[in-house]
Amino acid sequence: MLSYVTAGESHGPQLTGIVTGVPAGLELDVAELNTALAARQGGYGRGNRQKIEHDQVQIVGGVRHRITLGSPIALVIQNRDHAHWSQIMDPTAEATPQNTLRKVERPRPGHADLVGGMKYRHRDLRNVLERSSARKTAMRVAIGNICKQLLRQLGIDLVGFVTQVGPIGGTAVPTHDVARITTAIQENDLRMVDQTEVGAVHDLIDQTKRAGDTVGGIIRVIAENVPAGLGSYVNWDTKLDAKLAAAVMGVNAMKGVSIGAGFTAAQSFGSQVMDPINWDETNHWSRASDHLGGFEGGMTNGMPIIVNAAMKPIPTLYQPLPTADVNTKEAKKANVERSDTTAIVPASLVIESVVAIELAKVITDTFDGSNLGRLQEQVAVYRQELADY
Amino acid sequence: MLSYVTAGESHGPQLTGIVTGVPAGLELDVAELNTALAARQGGYGRGNRQKIEHDQVQIVGGVRHRITLGSPIALVIQNRDHAHWSQIMDPTAEATPQNTLRKVERPRPGHADLVGGMKYRHRDLRNVLERSSARKTAMRVAIGNICKQLLRQLGIDLVGFVTQVGPIGGTAVPTHDVARITTAIQENDLRMVDQTEVGAVHDLIDQTKRAGDTVGGIIRVIAENVPAGLGSYVNWDTKLDAKLAAAVMGVNAMKGVSIGAGFTAAQSFGSQVMDPINWDETNHWSRASDHLGGFEGGMTNGMPIIVNAAMKPIPTLYQPLPTADVNTKEAKKANVERSDTTAIVPASLVIESVVAIELAKVITDTFDGSNLGRLQEQVAVYRQELADY
Amino acid sequence: MLSYVTAGESHGPQLTGIVTGVPAGLELDVAELNTALAARQGGYGRGNRQKIEHDQVQIVGGVRHRITLGSPIALVIQNRDHAHWSQIMDPTAEATPQNTLRKVERPRPGHADLVGGMKYRHRDLRNVLERSSARKTAMRVAIGNICKQLLRQLGIDLVGFVTQVGPIGGTAVPTHDVARITTAIQENDLRMVDQTEVGAVHDLIDQTKRAGDTVGGIIRVIAENVPAGLGSYVNWDTKLDAKLAAAVMGVNAMKGVSIGAGFTAAQSFGSQVMDPINWDETNHWSRASDHLGGFEGGMTNGMPIIVNAAMKPIPTLYQPLPTADVNTKEAKKANVERSDTTAIVPASLVIESVVAIELAKVITDTFDGSNLGRLQEQVAVYRQELADY
Amino acid sequence: MLSYVTAGESHGPQLTGIVTGVPAGLELDVAELNTALAARQGGYGRGNRQKIEHDQVQIVGGVRHRITLGSPIALVIQNRDHAHWSQIMDPTAEATPQNTLRKVERPRPGHADLVGGMKYRHRDLRNVLERSSARKTAMRVAIGNICKQLLRQLGIDLVGFVTQVGPIGGTAVPTHDVARITTAIQENDLRMVDQTEVGAVHDLIDQTKRAGDTVGGIIRVIAENVPAGLGSYVNWDTKLDAKLAAAVMGVNAMKGVSIGAGFTAAQSFGSQVMDPINWDETNHWSRASDHLGGFEGGMTNGMPIIVNAAMKPIPTLYQPLPTADVNTKEAKKANVERSDTTAIVPASLVIESVVAIELAKVITDTFDGSNLGRLQEQVAVYRQELADY
Repeated sequence: MLSYVTAGESHGPQLTGIVTGVPAGLELDVAELNTALAARQGGYGRGNRQKIEHDQVQIVGGVRHRITLGSPIALVIQNRDHAHWSQIMDPTAEATPQNTLRKVERPRPGHADLVGGMKYRHRDLRNVLERSSARKTAMRVAIGNICKQLLRQLGIDLVGFVTQVGPIGGTAVPTHDVARITTAIQENDLRMVDQTEVGAVHDLIDQTKRAGDTVGGIIRVIAENVPAGLGSYVNWDTKLDAKLAAAVMGVNAMKGVSIGAGFTAAQSFGSQVMDPINWDETNHWSRASDHLGGFEGGMTNGMPIIVNAAMKPIPTLYQPLPTADVNTKEAKKANVERSDTTAIVPASLVIESVVAIELAKVITDTFDGSNLGRLQEQVAVYRQELADY
Repeated sequence: MLSYVTAGESHGPQLTGIVTGVPAGLELDVAELNTALAARQGGYGRGNRQKIEHDQVQIVGGVRHRITLGSPIALVIQNRDHAHWSQIMDPTAEATPQNTLRKVERPRPGHADLVGGMKYRHRDLRNVLERSSARKTAMRVAIGNICKQLLRQLGIDLVGFVTQVGPIGGTAVPTHDVARITTAIQENDLRMVDQTEVGAVHDLIDQTKRAGDTVGGIIRVIAENVPAGLGSYVNWDTKLDAKLAAAVMGVNAMKGVSIGAGFTAAQSFGSQVMDPINWDETNHWSRASDHLGGFEGGMTNGMPIIVNAAMKPIPTLYQPLPTADVNTKEAKKANVERSDTTAIVPASLVIESVVAIELAKVITDTFDGSNLGRLQEQVAVYRQELADY
Repeated sequence: MLSYVTAGESHGPQLTGIVTGVPAGLELDVAELNTALAARQGGYGRGNRQKIEHDQVQIVGGVRHRITLGSPIALVIQNRDHAHWSQIMDPTAEATPQNTLRKVERPRPGHADLVGGMKYRHRDLRNVLERSSARKTAMRVAIGNICKQLLRQLGIDLVGFVTQVGPIGGTAVPTHDVARITTAIQENDLRMVDQTEVGAVHDLIDQTKRAGDTVGGIIRVIAENVPAGLGSYVNWDTKLDAKLAAAVMGVNAMKGVSIGAGFTAAQSFGSQVMDPINWDETNHWSRASDHLGGFEGGMTNGMPIIVNAAMKPIPTLYQPLPTADVNTKEAKKANVERSDTTAIVPASLVIESVVAIELAKVITDTFDGSNLGRLQEQVAVYRQELADY
Repeated sequence: MLSYVTAGESHGPQLTGIVTGVPAGLELDVAELNTALAARQGGYGRGNRQKIEHDQVQIVGGVRHRITLGSPIALVIQNRDHAHWSQIMDPTAEATPQNTLRKVERPRPGHADLVGGMKYRHRDLRNVLERSSARKTAMRVAIGNICKQLLRQLGIDLVGFVTQVGPIGGTAVPTHDVARITTAIQENDLRMVDQTEVGAVHDLIDQTKRAGDTVGGIIRVIAENVPAGLGSYVNWDTKLDAKLAAAVMGVNAMKGVSIGAGFTAAQSFGSQVMDPINWDETNHWSRASDHLGGFEGGMTNGMPIIVNAAMKPIPTLYQPLPTADVNTKEAKKANVERSDTTAIVPASLVIESVVAIELAKVITDTFDGSNLGRLQEQVAVYRQELADY
């Protein structure tokens, strides 16, 4: 079964990831991995840290001569900023007054700081935020890209993009065509399909930044050509939409996740939001619409998968919020760590990545995921069976 | 670790559930279990089936003289309607023309019918819908109620209720007080807090039913007095909000899940939706608001947990949707199975149940869940530690 | 993924089991299930309880007209003896002096009694032994038999038998032919292959019984025609032999497990215990011997799987061992519960069952386990691929 | 929950490990980690590779100023030998005739070579053996040592040692005292307690090496002062002895695992192998013996844990075994890779490590494993409760 785990602090020496269960025989395009990492660092509304890091992934296990071996894949992304933090974040030197500067003792509302300190008994909340930081999503993008490359070999494509920033956007996306969307979002620095909204969003972000504030947004991921029948209705924990929900909500700053029409479906009538079934000689089984976002009974139904994610504004404000010092208990303004006005663009890559990972998981779980060739053969036979049903 | 599994078809002999990991020493109130099951069967907008079933749970393992033993708890709910289906759903008699009547061959858009048939190679889609049916959520309510009784022994209360039906509702709930909400929703047959909306929803449901249509809705669950620090930011799959998202999305008909302000947070500025931190001698650590629904960094932060769920309309329409016969491939109207106009009321119980289950899981995972007394002692020490942080 | 959970106390109303992940489309032979249950109750050396119970399984979910649906299968085995214990083991009546007779307060060394009481804070150790009892293995035999029926549809057969009782036996089994072994062990009431040892074992058991003592033994399971390549060397927790080890050690009273030559291999030279590889036109890849019991690198290698299990003597002695009363702390003789002189025969069925379950798991994990027909097709293609390697 | 995953090929750039769930607040002694790695490389009977590698662990995540943060710990061990293999094992260079020398096409019986090739569709079996190699156990020793340091903070000590090499040894170890054993085994290069056997084992290994052969052995791990009640009898997969069995069998070359008297118990009478229970004012609950190796009902019983492991001889023989070429199918002698005559000494460290890991897992699962201080407090309260039972 495909699974992954990551480690690494935001200013520590490196991010480390291990992915198990990637089929043998997949030729990995490392340049594409690095392009995905670069995309995660871009986007309007980012702060200065992204100018320091230029993430490059190293593959240190599980791949030989570009081809996956079937053994666990180990990935490393160096933190270039670590050079400035090598004493403060030293793993093995003893703590001294000199290397414990930059303590965080005024927890930022909305971040893990305070609760993390309580749970793990930390008094310097840097010990929390170094791991709770979204820095760690860089590794998830690398792993997601491996999965995306795998899915492509099975005919499945997907893309994550931004549909709304703060109050702007939310207009219906007129297509589920991944290639067209991918092209459209490369026209701007917001990964938005509707070019007419870009100017207004730029203005909004600029104003927000000037106000020392931050702003949230909504992300959509669409995956095409996913075969029907992945996941199962038989128990709640075999439903693929449930797994997607966990994967999306597990990304930093996400406060909501929906499939297809989502919360709008809840406000609708059944006659409006179901997707009528059709059969014809050419297309075999198909649907007239995709309100349900590609899911029925927790299973893929062959239509494009549509996942939406609601991202809260980043909690680090340059006009910091009220808090209290964890040691003196005095009322204070929260600490400020270098941060972005909005991270909706990189987050759209991260959400795309976790959807890719879940799809790769369910496919390698359903079929024999030992070797890519065998997997392709089984999926091809299965797709034919679906057509012939 | 607390976990559960269920089995049983909608018209089969019974629903069966096994829950492992409930602490020993919990006195189970079976009457309360049955009250929860009765509540699941109520609510405006239900069809006739609910008049047939009067669910009663039997405990057939794991409990002795009302007290849990620490061993797995086995539960049975008989399907009273099975009397009318005993041949059609016979587990052990061979199939004959007589006992295979009532075949389902015109899959209902929005249900698992078609994809389930493809995945499991069924031609009589009854083999799908008997399990994909929401009938199985009765067992989840029973299990959820056991967890609710457990949580109460730890000082934690929760309630699920309806905030919107179709286009009606959605007004802010003015309180997070579980007791007040519980009282308010018992005043009507919709589990709604705002009594002024009840009449309009009744009318809406009546009209919908006359039109042969169905309607969706939105559910909220609030849990009070949950200690801070459950779940963890250290990896995505240790975040409690991610687990809640999976549990909610895993319930039949759910298309969205959010925490606190959810999708509204995504449209807001950081200064609006964070919850400032306060410390004082009386309350120790507290927050001025609860926009984040009790979660920071995937961990509980001590504020009320707020979970929202978007339920699509039930896909079985008495004015059935276009489909095709799975055998002849001819265009047809979908099969009609006895169904409700809306199941938002019972669903609110189910969502409450899955939230209760996840909270019981994380608490028994975090502390020693072998025995209730020891668990209470550890939680009490931990709560004191949080206060003293 | 195929998994199962069971519930039920030894003298409670019933044993309950739920198996998820059994492929749809398997025709279940219920008579064979009951035959397996009867076999578990037989064997030389059993006590009187087995004359009370005549286990019969009821299928209450997941099966329709004998065919599995793909949904979870629920099984019930009534405890006939419960009639005599209905008050003492009543799940829902309050405890009274009358229904709390037969307390166990003198824990039996070797059983879970004392530690179970400590862990779960029980003072009447009946609350422990009712679940720790091997009675619960009846359900595992039923579930194992379902898996055995599934494996047979994939060309895989297996059998569990007794190779040693106390000091008698341990001679090499001259064959790995499951059919021949199955025939041979039906010739006696000890499930032993070597008929010449049966008389001596009968005498041993008789003497042991007269002495108020008990005796252990060794079990072997052989599985034939398992395709190579199940399990994986890539990480320790993907090794199939490791999973078998857990499954076997998880059976009551087991203190050891080995594969193939096992502990003898540890005392040998490499030139003695490896299995040379051969290739020829007829048999394709084969081995000259099977010292490694069908495993290399934690994967099946296509040779018969050989698993050995060491069963300790049953700890309940009619000449009871020294212990102390958990309430008074006085030195006492241990409680005596009705028990067997040896349970090696039923245990051989249980070990066979857990091996069947693990094999069914790994095969449905590796291939698409949704439907038996599709699974058979994928396994057939894979077997051909192995032959052509 | 504490868990770990590793990656890395034998001649690849590095071994990588990530451990999640180690409590925050543990001061890690890196020197001790490196001492454990050095011990794994020692022992009589090793080949030349060990002279090349001098394993040193780097901590690249989860630790700051020597103290664990509660976040995942990332570890790296460089493969010094990689310098000689940098082209052949290059992860990202395309395959060329020059960098694909040293192909393995004559699979070694007893290794994963042939089956791994079949499963993952490799034709150069180096793609298998690079991961199936026991080289990867170096990382498990590092992780095991972290767990050992954790356990020590909870008063638990353990040691792994050699009880038998080939036919020599197997005499009863006269003590369960971890400190005494640890001292004794440092007197020789075989990690054997009985110094009188050392000479004979040296001779045996020398002869075996001269014969181009290899030899197996038996390992024992003893863990002291483990509190009673870890693990549970309630289901097979909650039994701690079952988990230990999987962990041990999951180590390269292991063919058997037993607890306490193990297979000897199977040949014994109940009166011989149970451990009578005693209670007195001083020691509270204790046992007169430890035949059951510290387990009853799958739970620790407070006595020393005794785990035995049977290691087969290493399958790489300098007098290689018959095999066939995977491409030409011709009968051949198996490939020879640099190897040891016996690896029983390092394996004893690995088995010690996996036992340490399982004990750390169960303790952090049972209690709150977020922070070492809180864990210590909970364990202390629990130990007192056991004494007072």
